[in-house]
Parts: sequence; C-alpha cells; structure tokens
Amino acid sequence: MAGTDRTKKIDLAPAPVVVLCEPQLGENIGTAIRAMANFGLWELRLVNPREGWPNEKAAAASTKASHVLERVRVFDTTPEAIADLSLVYATTARRRDMFKPVLGPEEAANNLAAHIGAGQRAGLLFGRERWGLKNAEVVLADAIVTLPVEEAFASLNIAQAVLVLAYEWRRAAHVEQGLPFTGETGQPAARDDLLRMFAHLEESLDAAGFFTVPEKRASMVNNLRTMLVRANFNAQEVRTFRGVISALERRHLRKD
Amino acid sequence: MAGTDRTKKIDLAPAPVVVLCEPQLGENIGTAIRAMANFGLWELRLVNPREGWPNEKAAAASTKASHVLERVRVFDTTPEAIADLSLVYATTARRRDMFKPVLGPEEAANNLAAHIGAGQRAGLLFGRERWGLKNAEVVLADAIVTLPVEEAFASLNIAQAVLVLAYEWRRAAHVEQGLPFTGETGQPAARDDLLRMFAHLEESLDAAGFFTVPEKRASMVNNLRTMLVRANFNAQEVRTFRGVISALERRHLRKD
Repeated sequence: MAGTDRTKKIDLAPAPVVVLCEPQLGENIGTAIRAMANFGLWELRLVNPREGWPNEKAAAASTKASHVLERVRVFDTTPEAIADLSLVYATTARRRDMFKPVLGPEEAANNLAAHIGAGQRAGLLFGRERWGLKNAEVVLADAIVTLPVEEAFASLNIAQAVLVLAYEWRRAAHVEQGLPFTGETGQPAARDDLLRMFAHLEESLDAAGFFTVPEKRASMVNNLRTMLVRANFNAQEVRTFRGVISALERRHLRKD
Repeated sequence: MAGTDRTKKIDLAPAPVVVLCEPQLGENIGTAIRAMANFGLWELRLVNPREGWPNEKAAAASTKASHVLERVRVFDTTPEAIADLSLVYATTARRRDMFKPVLGPEEAANNLAAHIGAGQRAGLLFGRERWGLKNAEVVLADAIVTLPVEEAFASLNIAQAVLVLAYEWRRAAHVEQGLPFTGETGQPAARDDLLRMFAHLEESLDAAGFFTVPEKRASMVNNLRTMLVRANFNAQEVRTFRGVISALERRHLRKD
C-alpha cells in the first residue's frame, strides 16, 4: 500500500515504548520499525540484539522511518530497558502459569491510552523470534497481552505482533476521552523503583532462609514479583513497603 | 511469539479470499500467508506474481502454513481472480477519485462476516509493493478499505496490510470466541484470610516499632491495607505473603 503524504510532518506525540527482547534478525527489527511508524509509535528499545546495533538490514527494512531508526536505544537487560516505565505489558502467545491479567489488544491499547493520556510512560515487551519472552521478563509486566489468533497457528512474526498492537494503539489514542474523572492511585512507581524493592525483599529473604529449596528459588521469586507487580504500587507505596521490610528485619532488636 | 498448539486441528471455516495483485517478492507472499494462517484465513489467489509460482522464498517465509500454501491459485488477471466473488473490497492507502465508499478495517470486517455468514463469497484485494492497486482494479471493488495510518508514513508492507484485515476479520467472525487463553488469577482469597494477614503484618510492625508516630498509625494501616488489597491475592498468595512476614521476622536468628 503506497500512499504516504510527504507534505505531512511526523508528530512525535506521546506513545508507548516498544521493547524487543533479544531480537535475532535485523530484518525483523526493521519491519517492526516500519510497523511502528505506520501507526505513530516512534520509541524503540532493543535488549541485547543478537546481530548488534546499528544493523544494515534493519535500516533497509525500516524503509524511510528514520525518525524511529535514529532514536533506537540499546540496553543490556530487560529490567534496564523498562526502568523508567510505569505501565508495562508483555505480549505472548503462550499461556503462562502466573497470576497475571490477560488482555486482548484492544483492551490493552485502551489502558495504554488512558495511562499515557495521564502523562505517564508505558511500554510493550516483545520476545525472541524463536521462543518469546522468558518468564522472568513476563513477571515484570503488569499484564499479559495476547492476540485472538488461530490456536493451531498461533506464532506471529514479531513485526506483525508489533503491528497489531500499534494499530490498536492508534485507534485507542484517537478516541475521545472517556470518564469525567478517574481513580486516583498516585504517580505509579517507575519500574526500576520496583526492581530495587524486589532486590531488597529477595536479599532479606535469602538472609532469612526463606528459600529452603534452592531449585525452587527462581519460581518463588517469580511468584512474589507477580503478586507485588499486581498491586501497582506508586512511588510512595514502594517506599512504605521497603520500610515494612526493614522494620520486620529489625524486629528482634526491639523484642520484649 | 511462539505458542502454536500442535494438538489443535486447523479448521477451514468459510473466510474471505485474499487476492494479491502482481506481488513482486516471494518473501512478502510467504509472510502474507503466515499472517492469514494466524487469523484463520486460508484461501490465497495470486495475480501474475513477478517471480512465478511456486516460489521457494514464499514457502520458507510462510513457516508451517502448508494448509494455505498448498491451496494457492494463480491467475493471469485480477478480473479472473475475483470472478466467483460477490463482495470485493480493495485495500489502498491512497485517496482515489472515485465515487466509492471508504471503510475502515473493522467496518469492512463486519460487512465481510455478514456476507460470508449468509453463505456468500467475498474477497480482499491487495496491490503491488511499489505502487498498490491500479484504478482499473479498484473500480471492480464494492468499496475501498483503508487503514487509520499516520499520514506522513502511510505505506504498509503488503503482508502487514493483510495482517490487519485478517485480525479484524477474525474478531468480526469469532466475536464469541475471543482470546486463546485467559488470565488465571486463582480463587481470590476470602476477605477474612486477608484480614488475618493484615493482623499478622500489623502486629509484627507494632512489635518492630514501625509506627513511630502513634497518631498516624491508623492512616498508615489504611494505606498498607489499600496497597495489599489492590494486589488481589489468592489464598495461596496470602499464605506466601504470611511466610514472607514470618521469615523476615526470623532473619536475625540466622544472621551471620
């Protein structure tokens, strides 16, 4: 579909960040960039891209979306790539054994639009071509987004998963604002606040011998993180919760 | 996005025919096939593909969508390719000077679902990578379908235009089915489980001297409870969280 109007200027309006976790092929990154540009997304973050960055194939496949290509940022780890976001959705076609809400693309896009409309930052996580996102990555997300695919043929190309979400984002972002007022939960905590809180809790639990079976530590950590991500703490609440952890650790000092 | 369930059989339910007019690259045909398969389309017609047919690159890019690949039919002209259809939509990103209705993808998909649900045949026309559909082709369609793209970056890859229409088709045709899996949050904890958990936490915090200003204790308790209610713990998670409290309290017993 040709049809680009070159007289129009591209408007970098607030929009979700797209995070590709360890993408394998430059071409897929480029096609994802083009898909983003088609629907008004412009901020792409790559976690440890296999072929390195910059990448010629990505540049070629992105066609003329230089406003996205030039802004790509590379991170070593997924937590670093989402550190400044306060709403994160993980896209996956696989059921996960996690107590996390599952949304369709439209509902996800509506939530993103509300969050971003309120001046907050949000992002979408996409996994590796071969096997998607790791559980430890999904755990860090507020919810899972999955597409209404044919179950017998559920595996989407990354760029196409990006496209569907970008398409729904654009539709949601251009709808009139809904309710006259919304629930007040305060400024949601940035993801790195949460990550530091997790580290604090997990260190304390290690020291306390909470993880009695070493092989189960990873899955227990994932469960704990899932429980606490779901609570959607704001920055003040993260401080409060860290105060709780510290206080409980100190309890013996005051005992009796 | 991995996640295909190989135990499921593919159901060739009535669905729109996809017609690619003079596609230039085999790879794009293959990616379009994959996109079709993702959302339950299975009948592809090619008008005079530049690289001929069959095409190895198309086969490779279609991944395992052999149920679509094996059914591809090739035609010399667009009129022949749509001869048996009674509703045809032309996708284009360019305004045409034609007195023809213009639909968005959702409206188009709803119309297709109604038409096909009534036992009729329908199809979607997609143009060449470089310059789309000819006017003489668009003229043959009942309506134009266009996507809500960024005007300054409106050119979609063919496979991606196919994807958006296939996605909307599936939503329109399978409204009742929805997502392949839903969120599993378990049986939510009964409120008295939560209340006992609160009591446990608050006693421990009292003992630990967490509430330094007595007048603020009530409001801090309210804040803590609000934070934790929002997490919507299930019964197992309540037990886990109580285990966390107990472990932190015991930490000093193991310290160095």
